[in-house]
Amino acid sequence: MGKAPLYDESYLGNVKAWSEYYKAKVGFRNYWYAAAFSKEIADGDHLARTILGEDILFRRINGKVYAMKDRCIHRGIKLSDKVECHTDSTISCWWHGFTFRWSDGLVTDIVGAPESSHIGRAKIKVYPVEEAQGMLFVFIGDKDVEVPPLSEHLPPGFLDDNRILEGEVMVIEANWRMGPEGGIDEIHRYLHRTSRLLLDTKATMPLGHTGVTEQCKIFEDDGKPKGILDDYSSGNMYFEVDIDGQPSVVTGVRFADTGTKRKRTVSTSVWLPGVLSVEGFPEDGGVFYEFYVPVGENQYRNFMVLTQTCKTDEEASAFRSRYYSRWREYTVNDFLMQDNAARASAGQYYKNDKAWVEERLCREDFMLIEWRKLCSRNSKGVQTADHLD
Amino acid sequence: MGKAPLYDESYLGNVKAWSEYYKAKVGFRNYWYAAAFSKEIADGDHLARTILGEDILFRRINGKVYAMKDRCIHRGIKLSDKVECHTDSTISCWWHGFTFRWSDGLVTDIVGAPESSHIGRAKIKVYPVEEAQGMLFVFIGDKDVEVPPLSEHLPPGFLDDNRILEGEVMVIEANWRMGPEGGIDEIHRYLHRTSRLLLDTKATMPLGHTGVTEQCKIFEDDGKPKGILDDYSSGNMYFEVDIDGQPSVVTGVRFADTGTKRKRTVSTSVWLPGVLSVEGFPEDGGVFYEFYVPVGENQYRNFMVLTQTCKTDEEASAFRSRYYSRWREYTVNDFLMQDNAARASAGQYYKNDKAWVEERLCREDFMLIEWRKLCSRNSKGVQTADHLD
Amino acid sequence: MGKAPLYDESYLGNVKAWSEYYKAKVGFRNYWYAAAFSKEIADGDHLARTILGEDILFRRINGKVYAMKDRCIHRGIKLSDKVECHTDSTISCWWHGFTFRWSDGLVTDIVGAPESSHIGRAKIKVYPVEEAQGMLFVFIGDKDVEVPPLSEHLPPGFLDDNRILEGEVMVIEANWRMGPEGGIDEIHRYLHRTSRLLLDTKATMPLGHTGVTEQCKIFEDDGKPKGILDDYSSGNMYFEVDIDGQPSVVTGVRFADTGTKRKRTVSTSVWLPGVLSVEGFPEDGGVFYEFYVPVGENQYRNFMVLTQTCKTDEEASAFRSRYYSRWREYTVNDFLMQDNAARASAGQYYKNDKAWVEERLCREDFMLIEWRKLCSRNSKGVQTADHLD
Ligand code: FES
Ligand code: FES
Ligand code: FES
Ligand SMILES: [Fe+2]
Ligand SMILES: [Fe+2]
Ligand SMILES: [Fe+2]
Repeated sequence: MGKAPLYDESYLGNVKAWSEYYKAKVGFRNYWYAAAFSKEIADGDHLARTILGEDILFRRINGKVYAMKDRCIHRGIKLSDKVECHTDSTISCWWHGFTFRWSDGLVTDIVGAPESSHIGRAKIKVYPVEEAQGMLFVFIGDKDVEVPPLSEHLPPGFLDDNRILEGEVMVIEANWRMGPEGGIDEIHRYLHRTSRLLLDTKATMPLGHTGVTEQCKIFEDDGKPKGILDDYSSGNMYFEVDIDGQPSVVTGVRFADTGTKRKRTVSTSVWLPGVLSVEGFPEDGGVFYEFYVPVGENQYRNFMVLTQTCKTDEEASAFRSRYYSRWREYTVNDFLMQDNAARASAGQYYKNDKAWVEERLCREDFMLIEWRKLCSRNSKGVQTADHLD
Repeated sequence: MGKAPLYDESYLGNVKAWSEYYKAKVGFRNYWYAAAFSKEIADGDHLARTILGEDILFRRINGKVYAMKDRCIHRGIKLSDKVECHTDSTISCWWHGFTFRWSDGLVTDIVGAPESSHIGRAKIKVYPVEEAQGMLFVFIGDKDVEVPPLSEHLPPGFLDDNRILEGEVMVIEANWRMGPEGGIDEIHRYLHRTSRLLLDTKATMPLGHTGVTEQCKIFEDDGKPKGILDDYSSGNMYFEVDIDGQPSVVTGVRFADTGTKRKRTVSTSVWLPGVLSVEGFPEDGGVFYEFYVPVGENQYRNFMVLTQTCKTDEEASAFRSRYYSRWREYTVNDFLMQDNAARASAGQYYKNDKAWVEERLCREDFMLIEWRKLCSRNSKGVQTADHLD
Repeated sequence: MGKAPLYDESYLGNVKAWSEYYKAKVGFRNYWYAAAFSKEIADGDHLARTILGEDILFRRINGKVYAMKDRCIHRGIKLSDKVECHTDSTISCWWHGFTFRWSDGLVTDIVGAPESSHIGRAKIKVYPVEEAQGMLFVFIGDKDVEVPPLSEHLPPGFLDDNRILEGEVMVIEANWRMGPEGGIDEIHRYLHRTSRLLLDTKATMPLGHTGVTEQCKIFEDDGKPKGILDDYSSGNMYFEVDIDGQPSVVTGVRFADTGTKRKRTVSTSVWLPGVLSVEGFPEDGGVFYEFYVPVGENQYRNFMVLTQTCKTDEEASAFRSRYYSRWREYTVNDFLMQDNAARASAGQYYKNDKAWVEERLCREDFMLIEWRKLCSRNSKGVQTADHLD
């Protein structure tokens, strides 16, 4: 009664070192995922979203957000087509009135069949929800699994006090794995040499670094976030490249010293189940996060989140002001869109499972392989066809 | 040379009591189906329609309607792309001029190959057609099967003298089985509590009936229509329901007695191969019919037909007038659209064969199961991939 | 690791005499194919096109056209999404700067990884390109196959000196085999009886010829073009056909002798891998060519090319003038569109592999079968799922 796997099994032998990652086409199960920005659901409001192929209905009731499978257990219609909440604690399906309790999914009543034995017994799936830092997280997992604390599936520091967030969310037409792989990609600076962000920030952008191979830190202590951190500080930047013997045809971007000592981006890391963390980007002291959340096989939701640690309301307000006047245009809508365009184009290729076998990575791409292996070692299960709506 | 079945065979063991119904994803073969309202094809005109996945071309010639496979036997182009009828008795394919006789499908001539041995021998498939009560019916069946009288596949009484019809047809984006199952659904009154039809007719609409389980009449005499009739007259109406302990949160619609004794809807029944009959709806003495005709796997055509028995032309004219001024707006475009919306939403769920196994029916849904079993017992064959164009 | 075949294997036993043709759903490998009109790529310009399911990027550099796989070997993005050629000899992928030499595909540099061992070793696929008569041809073939001269895959005479070409290219929504089969179709004159070209040229168009069965010339000498030529000159034209006993209901087009002796179309032939040649069409002395080039399973590109042998510039200029003032309207946009409409309609039918078994050809269709057999005898390989992008 199980369905065919989502991936071509004939390639499994070629990806032995990271086969769980290869299988995780629609993501890893039993993890916390970013579901929405808090501001996307006002009190009394609802939001329907597909996450890891599961249709989920969120609703905020008296400040707290609940999440429920968006499919009636009776005859399968979508609760979100017509949301009917007759009490604060419940939602009733608009067809026959199966009524589910938000807190535990229990069928409390059935309008059309008040004597049914389903009442007080049958349940719809509900999802654990947490809200933190102005974002909403949902746990996508198996029935009897113990739900770990949210902090275990976030980059260290994300939950720090005084962290202020601003950002955007958009759907990218590519498999979710293009997300983290594009984020920790160490050799793609060439792509960004034309971004207007560089002019705005007077940021120096080399074409790359030499001598950075095999240097990364791996975090996989029990009960802590699992991630991998790029350590290229020791590499040598270069700004000119010859092409087919013609000297210095391609050049990076280097600004004259303006007298102000600017820090460089400090580090890039990526964490299970797919969260990027970049320190010092796009402004000193800030941390940029990107959450890559599978929608289905060939789509993921990308939360692009700029943060700054702000000790006072004035600092917070100044940061928000910088975000809307400056970073949103130059970072989100320009620099990051270059990455998203590359991911969408690569997504067309990796849609064909053969790509995972035929890609020709460089030694300098070692971070990608380390990430894939890390995921495979620490996987708590992958989404299969049976989980998808 | 056979194709894969249209359904997931791994679930057959779970639906043993009604496996033929489970298989009949594109309908049952060897039945008469509603094809069109008569007024849809004027004399000399044609109509191309897909019925049970078969592309069919209808043409009315001197009053009588003929039906032919809409695909040339020679090299497969659609006759309907360019209808060329050089005589009243034939149609010629627009590419090489294979000419088919409407009455029996015989190749009478080939314009481009007048000496071909196909002439007078080869045949295209033609379909039996009947016209009754202002509707056109076509028999979709196997080559050598004996064609039963039309009346055997219609609700009893539909062909009554003096029955006047008015109605509409539309395509619903759902598997056809959502049609009859939505029609005989005994516990979905909740859905209709907001229909403007109730205000217009001052019709009382309870939230449901209690104590109606296992009561239905089954008709399956040889040579007669096969159907199942809902008998809920003995049940007790209720108009209020508690939700999660809060009393009477949901209420039905009950009008004060207006002094005029209004009859309630008398009965609902559904008949093979998929025709609903509702007595007393939407007006006293009238019968409402709905014909659910598969188009393909995930579409069906819904003929919504209001009828009234009229002894005189004046009565007929008054009924037509009521239809256009009142019933079309309140019944077809309001009340019935609530059902169609639910069917379309459910169709998304039942598209996945797993739904037939995972649905959680109530005991009060026994009519659905009885209907599925009735169909399976009386099935004369199901449409397979090989039948589809 | 191989993928499932593109065709239904269960029908192979039914098409034994031409099984390679049946398999060649996306074309035959190891042939030269028309890729574009020369004028479609100006100097310094590029053109991205899918041919036989392979995504190819063309670029004209100092007059000469090169062709390369339009998919970076590194992580698979499309080079054509953002063409970056830093030198005349190379193209650099816009993500990490893998740089490929147009002439041989060698990785000469990698902007983001200048020390990579791929440099000077790894290669992208490049395609042989030839330009002739104002058209661009590309060889789609296996890695180590010897590339034959272009002339071997063109109709004899196409490369003649003084041949002047004018024409159009469009994508037809049908499998490519509809192309040649519609071109050598001997019994489809009926289709054209309403073309405005006949009025314009006062061309006589019979409904067909009788007595032409089994007459064709086959060319398959080693090292020469492989083709099949229609020889219907001996047949008897007819202009009237009875339908179902009614005399002369359908008539062809016959003009009174205008005093000028007009030659009839002299011959029609079709050549591997799918090129039609019609002598004397649409004007005396001219030759019409049609190139049918697979795009994918259900699309092909149709190059419709009118030619005339012109000894002087004045003659060439006069021919071009006739093309734009007359032939483009009456031939390309009228007469030939009738054929293309039929091919698109037939394409819907032949999309289902079963069609190749169920079609009911006439004896007069013998050319189609001879063509299929010729292709199967001379096939140098077919495109499989593994070749497709
Ligand atoms: S489908 Fe939801 S209550 Fe019936
Ligand atoms: S396809 Fe109809 S006559 Fe040839
Ligand atoms: S994908 Fe082209 S260089 Fe990386
Ligand atoms: Fe980037
Ligand atoms: Fe209803
Ligand atoms: Fe033609």
